Amino acid sequence: MGGGGGSEEKTEVENREWYMAAYAAEGVPTADHLKLRTAKLSLAKDSIPDGHVALELLFVSVDPYLRTRMSGSRDPAQFELGQVITAFGIGRVIRSKDGTYEEGDIVVHPNCPIAEYCVTSFLMLRKFDPNSGISLPDYISSMGVPGFAAWVGIEVLGDPKPGSNVFVSAASGAVGMYAGQLAKLRGCRVIGSTGSDDKVKLIREEFGYDDGFNYHKETDYDAALRRYFPNGIDVYLDNVGGRMLEAVLNHVNKHARIPLCGMISQYNKVWTEREGVRNLLNMVGKEVRMEGFMLASYSHRFGEFAEAMERYIREGKVKTKTKINLGIESFLESLASLFTSSNVGKVVVQVKP
Amino acid sequence: MGGGGGSEEKTEVENREWYMAAYAAEGVPTADHLKLRTAKLSLAKDSIPDGHVALELLFVSVDPYLRTRMSGSRDPAQFELGQVITAFGIGRVIRSKDGTYEEGDIVVHPNCPIAEYCVTSFLMLRKFDPNSGISLPDYISSMGVPGFAAWVGIEVLGDPKPGSNVFVSAASGAVGMYAGQLAKLRGCRVIGSTGSDDKVKLIREEFGYDDGFNYHKETDYDAALRRYFPNGIDVYLDNVGGRMLEAVLNHVNKHARIPLCGMISQYNKVWTEREGVRNLLNMVGKEVRMEGFMLASYSHRFGEFAEAMERYIREGKVKTKTKINLGIESFLESLASLFTSSNVGKVVVQVKP
Repeated sequence: MGGGGGSEEKTEVENREWYMAAYAAEGVPTADHLKLRTAKLSLAKDSIPDGHVALELLFVSVDPYLRTRMSGSRDPAQFELGQVITAFGIGRVIRSKDGTYEEGDIVVHPNCPIAEYCVTSFLMLRKFDPNSGISLPDYISSMGVPGFAAWVGIEVLGDPKPGSNVFVSAASGAVGMYAGQLAKLRGCRVIGSTGSDDKVKLIREEFGYDDGFNYHKETDYDAALRRYFPNGIDVYLDNVGGRMLEAVLNHVNKHARIPLCGMISQYNKVWTEREGVRNLLNMVGKEVRMEGFMLASYSHRFGEFAEAMERYIREGKVKTKTKINLGIESFLESLASLFTSSNVGKVVVQVKP
Repeated sequence: MGGGGGSEEKTEVENREWYMAAYAAEGVPTADHLKLRTAKLSLAKDSIPDGHVALELLFVSVDPYLRTRMSGSRDPAQFELGQVITAFGIGRVIRSKDGTYEEGDIVVHPNCPIAEYCVTSFLMLRKFDPNSGISLPDYISSMGVPGFAAWVGIEVLGDPKPGSNVFVSAASGAVGMYAGQLAKLRGCRVIGSTGSDDKVKLIREEFGYDDGFNYHKETDYDAALRRYFPNGIDVYLDNVGGRMLEAVLNHVNKHARIPLCGMISQYNKVWTEREGVRNLLNMVGKEVRMEGFMLASYSHRFGEFAEAMERYIREGKVKTKTKINLGIESFLESLASLFTSSNVGKVVVQVKP
């Protein structure tokens, strides 16, 4: 084993890491809120506790939910001020004090420090199989947070039947690209909303959507949904919240399901400034179920998901588009890019270019 | 059998009935929208189809959901213009062309014309057992729409554990009075909101609530809920919607459930004028499930409900407060009274005083 790992003989590193300097109650987080600092980290074998490993981080997953941990709200998932922030990442074991892992192993860490190095318990990790045919960035995309989120939203909570009418917002985003493909694999009719004509083209041509619309052009969402869903909406995977969610509630069918994956249009506002949804009463007569979800609650189903997704990737049934930003220093701009409609697909930071 | 029924020898009656004269897009329905008319109805045996019975209506259940059928919205449950409106009622069989029913039987009809008489298929009816110890008004209250709604909301969708923190709005209303008692029977801590200090006293002393508050006085709902739920809310049975629902979403615990029974604060407004709920994003992190329900979808569980509720009533574990308004002509004011905080408990119209 060993491979690249063995060549690293550092016993102490200058470790660059992102930390929460100040909460961002509203707006896109800036360099006032998230700062990069350098801290010494000992990688000497005797400074690593038993059952722990030292990792050199390779890729970090940049996902919208991170924003919700930076607002300083009463939500207990807030990052602590002055502390390193964490995300889903992938790294190489460079020291091991645990029998399960060897130097050189590639591992996935669902909550790793956004840093160049870290020392972590083996309990947090899952080994990456280099013979799986899955690429490293795929491992934090289709096989990571967005793929799993799309799977929980569509397969577990949305559970559409063949022929069901499925709507997905932020359809060209990381979750949206998988959600559309998973719904198509179930035989549904799938429509997406996204932020440009090019992206509408992309979701149709690459991600299997039957059709889609550009919400910057079709500003009357109600009219757009009436046109795209003459038979109503059975499942809506909500990634945006606000006005789009409200418009959907005017077109839901009986017993429609609305898994709430995230609400990217709402993250950067304090809650009293958010767009109120005025027609929740429609949920009564139509007996709609709306349900928020976090992936941690579905970890017992990760194996089932990973098996299905790996098969889809191998069979070419699920495609991925990834934007890889280079260098740990690119994390802040990568995060901000999620909120500006400038991305397509999954945003990943490659820690060392 | 026969009893009172046999004495009625009318072959044609002047039948007073309420019909939908015009839709009420907003506001409390008035005499412009609902009108009483007299129509001849033949009760001659040969004018009643096989499998049908003629009923003399005794009591009509007046429930808030009726309002949602009077707005002229796209919702297919709208009453038809010019047609008689319907509600849950109880009547006496005065002619029978069906083997199951005899003259004099008392029957429950979940969707009967709001009229003095009707001719209806036996399929719609359920026989009332005069030896059950349940009173006729109870049969359309605890054993009818509000009791069943409270049961579905608490037992099926809310499903609180012993010790769970349960909140019920419109707690002194027909659904609220049962919801509190059912949640207490499950060993929960139950708090209610209602419209006067007297009603707060009532829900504590009569309906088993641990405590409650007057939402006319405690206008900062957020502050009130923080005080009454220091450990958060696990189940909220929503009968009002709007600002109260929004405030609840600031205090929900992880995996909280919000069965939406109705939204009485919102029925009388066109949807664009309704109070928007701005903090649905909280549903994501807390993984809240919000679900609208209509009783028709739970009819397969009615037997289970009726058995449990009948036992509770016999054992004195569930109490009812009923407001009986006299005469079919009182229906309109009875309906309007649901929206003015003037009632306590269940509103019923006794068709003939």
